[in-house]
Amino acid sequence: MTPAPSPEDLLAAATAGDRRALARLVSFVEEAGPGGDGVLAAVHPATGRAWTTGITGAPGAGKSTLTSRLVEVIRLAGTRVAIVAVDPSSPFSGGAVLGDRVRMQEHAGDHGVYIRSMASRGHLGGLAAATPRVVAMLDGVGFLEILVETVGVGQDEVDVAANTDTTVVVVTPGWGDGVQVAKAGLLEVGDVFVVNKADRPGVEQAVDDLSQMLEMGGDRAWRPPILPVVATTGEGIGAMWEAVHRHRDHLVASGLLAGRRAARLLAEFEAALRAGLRDRMRQAVADGGGEGVAAAVAAGTVDPWTAARRLLERTDL
Amino acid sequence: MTPAPSPEDLLAAATAGDRRALARLVSFVEEAGPGGDGVLAAVHPATGRAWTTGITGAPGAGKSTLTSRLVEVIRLAGTRVAIVAVDPSSPFSGGAVLGDRVRMQEHAGDHGVYIRSMASRGHLGGLAAATPRVVAMLDGVGFLEILVETVGVGQDEVDVAANTDTTVVVVTPGWGDGVQVAKAGLLEVGDVFVVNKADRPGVEQAVDDLSQMLEMGGDRAWRPPILPVVATTGEGIGAMWEAVHRHRDHLVASGLLAGRRAARLLAEFEAALRAGLRDRMRQAVADGGGEGVAAAVAAGTVDPWTAARRLLERTDL
Repeated sequence: MTPAPSPEDLLAAATAGDRRALARLVSFVEEAGPGGDGVLAAVHPATGRAWTTGITGAPGAGKSTLTSRLVEVIRLAGTRVAIVAVDPSSPFSGGAVLGDRVRMQEHAGDHGVYIRSMASRGHLGGLAAATPRVVAMLDGVGFLEILVETVGVGQDEVDVAANTDTTVVVVTPGWGDGVQVAKAGLLEVGDVFVVNKADRPGVEQAVDDLSQMLEMGGDRAWRPPILPVVATTGEGIGAMWEAVHRHRDHLVASGLLAGRRAARLLAEFEAALRAGLRDRMRQAVADGGGEGVAAAVAAGTVDPWTAARRLLERTDL
Repeated sequence: MTPAPSPEDLLAAATAGDRRALARLVSFVEEAGPGGDGVLAAVHPATGRAWTTGITGAPGAGKSTLTSRLVEVIRLAGTRVAIVAVDPSSPFSGGAVLGDRVRMQEHAGDHGVYIRSMASRGHLGGLAAATPRVVAMLDGVGFLEILVETVGVGQDEVDVAANTDTTVVVVTPGWGDGVQVAKAGLLEVGDVFVVNKADRPGVEQAVDDLSQMLEMGGDRAWRPPILPVVATTGEGIGAMWEAVHRHRDHLVASGLLAGRRAARLLAEFEAALRAGLRDRMRQAVADGGGEGVAAAVAAGTVDPWTAARRLLERTDL
């Protein structure tokens, strides 16, 4: 009997370009738990080289077409690129506008492109938790560009897109008065704004509206550029990708990148602690009583707040 | 100089009916942190006597009018009642339909009624975290009935209402085909369903729709009753309150109540741990380096998943 390949073997194979090994690893880390955590721990030393770009905006803003165009630009430079599609309506996730689907299939035949749809995970909280794990995995096996596409509706989706190095917010002239952008919390997270479908009327108005709203945010070291783009024809895509690179240079030169990435590592640490705590609590209660703190809380013999304080006092965070 | 009253003094005063002391205590515990945690720990032994009823449903379903009617029924029995209004559009939160506002003011003059609006907390995650703390506080100072009113839109709001002993879901004949109820996740959390505005056409259809959807949920020890009510006139309110009592008897007799309440205590424990962990992490990073685990994660010298596992191994949950 052939033994199952170890995580180390799978990592070596995936790094060398074995897509089946990669798919297995990604499936591993999508699930919170000891198995996936072990793989992530093993791959951690190799991470930190990828640039992650979040792409978010309202449904219908053309995020997938834009993402597809970016893949073309990145592949022209010969760089390996991974796409993580969190939007279930994205053609990257199976559903598709025909033209996009054809383009996806072209990418699918390119071994420098890896597409992972997270849509099948269903539960949104799970998606938000799984995405940074998958991104770390792809970073660790050598994808130098990672694009994370999410629909910018709801806090969780916006957070997923914002949880990257550069966040691109996509709007359209028809998307309305910009109030929608503000309400969805997209103004705060955007590093680069794209007005897509710029061949339609109202582009200048959309750019002006965005510009004014961003100015209200006050002085910032980085002024998010607002770029008109026609994703369907590719017009403006090069300038937009240059803007992402300028943002990257800014983060590196200002030293802000280290802080951003440290915050993301700490968020993962917290998520792993939470998941572990929850398992332990479930187990403590299932075991029925016992001497543990969780059992005492469940029985009401100690209040939750005192129990938490005592436990925290004993940890060396 | 008069020393500030201790939490113990405030608790004694609030339990004796001093509303200013109570308001100060509630403000204390709304904020996560050592101050409020201490008050909650002090009040914990006195908690567990209140029955908490969540009231949720779509905007415009008449939750506030219904809540107001319930207060009248409860006060007729001489029982002290507290209302925690999480819905910013609720008249309990200041905004109001005129008739409701008048009714609120009648309650406001009644020392057996305490109304706390949580609307000013703004951030919804904060609201969801603060509500169980405020409810525990009100329980501890002797309110035997606590009504928690939330708008049933969005997971957080639904969770707040479901985080009670009995959850009442309010619908109206005009609310549509019931798909809305299902989509909002209200079918799963409702212990008692109320079809409000039952003087309008379509009541029987609404009751039938709900009934069919609930049957699809399969056999359950408790079959949620569906009760027509006209909150504006008070018609059916008595029967509805009786249904809440039957649900209470069911939870007590079946032994399910203990499990439900233990789960809520554990959720609070987890929330307190999370808040504490977050503070510690922020501090560790602010202190710049240091020997702690969080600092090592932020610096990338240990991966988040290994760090979490090691820390959990050392705790005696």
